[in-house]
Amino acid sequence: MANEIKGIAASNGVAIAKAYKLVDPDLSFEQRTIGDVEAEKGRLRAAFDASKKDLEQIRDKATASMGEAEAEVFTAHIMVLEDPELLGGIEGQIASEQVNAEVALKATTDMYIGMFEGMADDNPYMAERAADIRDVTKRIMSHLLGKQLPNPALINEEVIIVANDMTPSDTAQLDRRFVKGFITNIGGRTAHAAIMARTLEIPAIVGSEVATEQIADGQAMILDGLDGLAIIEPSDEQIKTYRAKGDRYLEQKVEWAKLKDEKSVTADGKEFVIGANIGTPKDLDGVTDNGGEGIGLYRTEFLYMDSKELPTEEEQFNAYKAVLEGMDGKTVTVRTMDIGGDKYLPYLPLPKEENPFLGYRAIRISLDRDDIFRTQLRALLRASVYGDLWIMFPMVATLPEFRAARDIFYEEKAKLQAQGTAIADGIKLGIMIEVPAAAVLADKFAQEVDFFSIGTNDLIGYSMAADRGNDKISYLYQPYNPSILRLIKNVIDSAHKYGKFAAMCGEMAGDPIALPILVGMGLDEFSMSATSMLQARSLMKKLNTTEMATLADQALDAETNDEVKALVEQTVLNK
Amino acid sequence: MANEIKGIAASNGVAIAKAYKLVDPDLSFEQRTIGDVEAEKGRLRAAFDASKKDLEQIRDKATASMGEAEAEVFTAHIMVLEDPELLGGIEGQIASEQVNAEVALKATTDMYIGMFEGMADDNPYMAERAADIRDVTKRIMSHLLGKQLPNPALINEEVIIVANDMTPSDTAQLDRRFVKGFITNIGGRTAHAAIMARTLEIPAIVGSEVATEQIADGQAMILDGLDGLAIIEPSDEQIKTYRAKGDRYLEQKVEWAKLKDEKSVTADGKEFVIGANIGTPKDLDGVTDNGGEGIGLYRTEFLYMDSKELPTEEEQFNAYKAVLEGMDGKTVTVRTMDIGGDKYLPYLPLPKEENPFLGYRAIRISLDRDDIFRTQLRALLRASVYGDLWIMFPMVATLPEFRAARDIFYEEKAKLQAQGTAIADGIKLGIMIEVPAAAVLADKFAQEVDFFSIGTNDLIGYSMAADRGNDKISYLYQPYNPSILRLIKNVIDSAHKYGKFAAMCGEMAGDPIALPILVGMGLDEFSMSATSMLQARSLMKKLNTTEMATLADQALDAETNDEVKALVEQTVLNK
Repeated sequence: MANEIKGIAASNGVAIAKAYKLVDPDLSFEQRTIGDVEAEKGRLRAAFDASKKDLEQIRDKATASMGEAEAEVFTAHIMVLEDPELLGGIEGQIASEQVNAEVALKATTDMYIGMFEGMADDNPYMAERAADIRDVTKRIMSHLLGKQLPNPALINEEVIIVANDMTPSDTAQLDRRFVKGFITNIGGRTAHAAIMARTLEIPAIVGSEVATEQIADGQAMILDGLDGLAIIEPSDEQIKTYRAKGDRYLEQKVEWAKLKDEKSVTADGKEFVIGANIGTPKDLDGVTDNGGEGIGLYRTEFLYMDSKELPTEEEQFNAYKAVLEGMDGKTVTVRTMDIGGDKYLPYLPLPKEENPFLGYRAIRISLDRDDIFRTQLRALLRASVYGDLWIMFPMVATLPEFRAARDIFYEEKAKLQAQGTAIADGIKLGIMIEVPAAAVLADKFAQEVDFFSIGTNDLIGYSMAADRGNDKISYLYQPYNPSILRLIKNVIDSAHKYGKFAAMCGEMAGDPIALPILVGMGLDEFSMSATSMLQARSLMKKLNTTEMATLADQALDAETNDEVKALVEQTVLNK
Repeated sequence: MANEIKGIAASNGVAIAKAYKLVDPDLSFEQRTIGDVEAEKGRLRAAFDASKKDLEQIRDKATASMGEAEAEVFTAHIMVLEDPELLGGIEGQIASEQVNAEVALKATTDMYIGMFEGMADDNPYMAERAADIRDVTKRIMSHLLGKQLPNPALINEEVIIVANDMTPSDTAQLDRRFVKGFITNIGGRTAHAAIMARTLEIPAIVGSEVATEQIADGQAMILDGLDGLAIIEPSDEQIKTYRAKGDRYLEQKVEWAKLKDEKSVTADGKEFVIGANIGTPKDLDGVTDNGGEGIGLYRTEFLYMDSKELPTEEEQFNAYKAVLEGMDGKTVTVRTMDIGGDKYLPYLPLPKEENPFLGYRAIRISLDRDDIFRTQLRALLRASVYGDLWIMFPMVATLPEFRAARDIFYEEKAKLQAQGTAIADGIKLGIMIEVPAAAVLADKFAQEVDFFSIGTNDLIGYSMAADRGNDKISYLYQPYNPSILRLIKNVIDSAHKYGKFAAMCGEMAGDPIALPILVGMGLDEFSMSATSMLQARSLMKKLNTTEMATLADQALDAETNDEVKALVEQTVLNK
C-alpha cells in the first residue's frame, strides 16, 4: 500500500499521533544589489533579534525539562549572536559590497567557519565553535527568509518525530511527555538514535529511507516499532487494530514485569545472569525496576564527557561508590575510560585521525596517559569496599597491554594500602573482547584475566571491517554471521577451559535471535539495556539448553548471517 | 653515542653522503601597519614573481626526470599564482586594512582554503585545490620573509634526505641519481615512504623520531638501512667500516642475482612459488630481472588513479594483455578495482566517511557500481587468451559478496561468448583474505573459490583494530602476533582441505621473520615487491620444511609478537 513505510524496527511499542517533521527548510537565496543599505542592515538586525528570542526560549525550556548542563549549548549559541564582531562584519559587507543581508551573512560566517575548521586539527574545541556558528547562521538565515526552523525543544503536544537522522543533540532535546516515537531515514538498530529510543522506551523505526519524503508535517500516523512499519493517514480500522496491538505489547510488558524478582533460568533449570549496561548512577532505578542481577557494563566515559575538565579522583570515587552501594552487593563491572573513536573530550585534545575507530582510543590512551588512568584506578580501588567490584579494560588487543594495565592497577593498590586505605579483597580484573586478535587468542588471555566481556558492536565492526555508523555498508553489520559466532564461541570455551567467567555486554546479548545461540554456547552473563532484561528473561524461560547447544552447533557451521537468522526463527521463535 | 640515531630499518643498503633537510623553515610573522601601501604591494608582487620562477624551474626539472604527468601538480600551482583574483584580493586587503603583505596573504588565502575545504565533503577535488593554495601560500610567504623552502626536485648532488615524513608527492619528486637514501622521524616499515624506498632500492630508515632535530643540513652522515642506524659526522674509521658493510650487501645482492633462474625450493626439496606484486605493465622488467615465477598481485587501481576518467574497456584490455603477454604463460593474478580507504578517484566522488578503512571500498563499490565492475571483467575476459589469468576480489567479507561477484563474472562471460569472443578456459576466481571474518570462515569460502590470497597489511590492521598509518599506535602493527598467525594458518589449512591454492601478497610474504613460519605452514605462493624476491629465494634454500613446521607450531602457541620474533631469530636466523 502506498501509505505504508517499512523500516528497521529499532524500539518496541506502538504510537499513534501526528507527524512532526524535524527537517530543515530550504534556505537557498539569490544575490541582490542593495540600494538602501541602512534598511538592509535593519533587516539583518531584526533577524538577529528574532534568533536571540528563539534561542532564549529554547534554552529556558531545555533548562526546565532537562537541566542546565543540557541547555548550555544554547547559551553558547546566544553568545555567538551577541558577538559585536559578527554583526559588525556582516553590516560592513552589506555596506561595502552593496549586497543583500543573506549574501553578507553567508560570506562572513563561511569565513569564520573556515578559520575555526582550519584550527580544528590541533584543537577539537574549534570544530565545536565552527558547528555553533553553522547552527546560528542557519537560524538567522531562516528569519531573513521568513522560514521556520524546527525547534524540537518547543514541542508541547503529542507527536511522532520524522527526521533524516536523530543526532545525540536532537535526542537530548526531546521531551518524552510529548514525543511518542520517531522514524528516521537512515541508521540501523545499533545507531545512537535507536539505542536512545530503547532507553526512553518509546517506539522507533530507523533506516526507512523515505520517511521525510513521504510524510508531511502534521499528518496523522501510526508508528509500529515492533515490526518496523509506519502508516500515514491511517483508517479508523487501522487505528483500532494498532491500538490493540500497542495494548497487547503493554500487557506483555506487564507479564514481563512479573519476572522482575525471578531468576534467569532456562526451561531445563540452568541459571544465567542477566545484567544491565549503564552510563551513570542515575540509571540505577531502571536496573532495579527491571530486575537486573548486576551491572555488566558501567560506561565510565560519561564521567569524563559530562565535565569541563578531567574528573577528580573524589568525583569519580563518589560516582563509583553510588553505583556499588545502589547495587547492594550485586556485581558491578566497571569499564575504564573508553575515549577516542567517536568520543572525544573538549579538554583533552586527541590527534586528528584518518580512521579514529582504528586509532588512539580506550586502553591505548590509558596506557599512554597513565596519569589519567591511575586516578581512575585509585577512585575504583577506594570505592571497592562498597560492593562487588569487577574492573575491565576496553580495546585490549595484546597480552602485553593487559599486563601493563594490571601492573599499574597493582601499583596503585599497593600505594593505597601503604597509606592504610581499605580495599576490598577479590576485585576481579578482566578485558573487553572487541578486537578480533584478542578473540582469536582468548585461550592465552584466559590464563591471565579473571573474566571476559564480549563487546559485540565493535567486535562485529572490526571483524567485518565495517563501521556500523556508515550507511553505505550497513548490510555488513552481521551479528549472526558464523564468523562472529565462531569468535564468540572461542572466547566462551577459552574462558571455561581455565575456569573463568564469560560475559557479553553488546547489543547482541539482548537480541532475541542471538540469545538462544548464546544460551546454547553457555555464555555466563548477558548484559543489555535495562529495558531489554525482562524480555530476555522471559525468552530464556522457554529454552532448553541441550536443544540450544545443537542449535548453536548448526549456527557455527552455517554459511551466512541470513541462514542463521532463519534457523533461529524457524526452530525457536516459531516464525 | 650522541651522534648515532636508531630507527626502523625500512630499506636495505648503506649510503654515505651529506644530509639534505626536507624541513619547512619557520614562517611565522608579525602584523604591522603599513604607511606606503604601494611599496608593500610591490613587495608582494616580487614574492609572487620569485615563487613563479621557482615553480617553473621545478616543473621543468620534474618533467625532464619523471615525465609530464608527475610534473602536473606544479602547473596547477603556477595557475594558482597567476589567478588575478588572488593577487588582487591580497592587494585590496593591504590597501583597505593598511597591513603588511604577510597578514593580507594569510587572511586572503585562509578564506579561500576555508571555502574549498567547506566544499570538500561533497567533492574531493576541492580538497586538492585547498592543498594547492596551501602549498603556494607557503612558497610566497617564504619569499616575503626571505627564507628558503626546500626544493627536493632541484637536488643536483648526492644527498641523504632528512625529513619528518615523506609524502607520496615528496617521493615523486626525488631524482634517484642524487638521492642516496632517507631517514624520517615518523612512519613504519609498511608506510608509503618505506615501500617506495624498497622499490627505488635506496636505503631508508623510518620512525627515528629525532632525525630532523639532531641532524643539521649539510652534515656528513652514514645511513645504514640494514640495521636502522644513522651516524652523524662519522669518523674516517666509521666511513671505512660502513663502506665495507655496504659493499658486502651489494655482493650479497650479486649472489642473490645468481638465483634468478632457479626454482624456489627448500633445503629438503619442497617447491614453492615466489611471485611479484605489481602496479602497472611498466613493473614487468623488475619482475623478470628478479626471477619472478608469476604475478601474485596486479593492483589494477593504478589504471583508475592515473586517469582523468574511468578507464575504458579498451584501455584496460590493453594493460591486462600487456601484462599477460609479458609474463609469457606464467600466472598473473589480477585484483579487481580496490578504490576507497585511502585511495579515491577525482572523477568518482565517494561519500565522506568517518572511518574510510571501515567503509565503502573495493568489492563493496564494485558490487554497488556494477557498471564499472562489468567493464573491468569484460576487459579481463577478453585479455584472458594471452596468458594464465587468475582474478581475485578485494575486501570480501561474506560468502554472498563472493557469489554476487562470481555471478556477474559468469554473466559477462556468457555475453561475450554469445558474441563469439574468445575466452581462455580455466580462468581461476579467488578472493583476497584481508577481512578477519573471511579468514575465520575460510573453510566455507574454500568450497566455492579457486584460491585465496592473504593481504596481510589490511588483515593485521583490522584484526588488531589499528590503522597502520597512525603513528600513535604503530606498536599494534604486529605481523607475528600469534592471533594473526592463527588466522593465516586457518586460511592455508582450509584451502588445502578442499584442494585449493593459498597465496599471500602482503608485505609479510617477503619478511625474513615471517617467511620461515609460512614455509612451515605450507603456504603455496609468496608474492612480494620484485626487489625482495631473490633474497626470499635465498632464505628458502636454507630451510627444512619439517623443522619449519615445528617452528610454526611453536609460533602458533606463543603469546606475543615479540616472542615469535625472538623464536625465529634464535632458531632460524642465528641472531
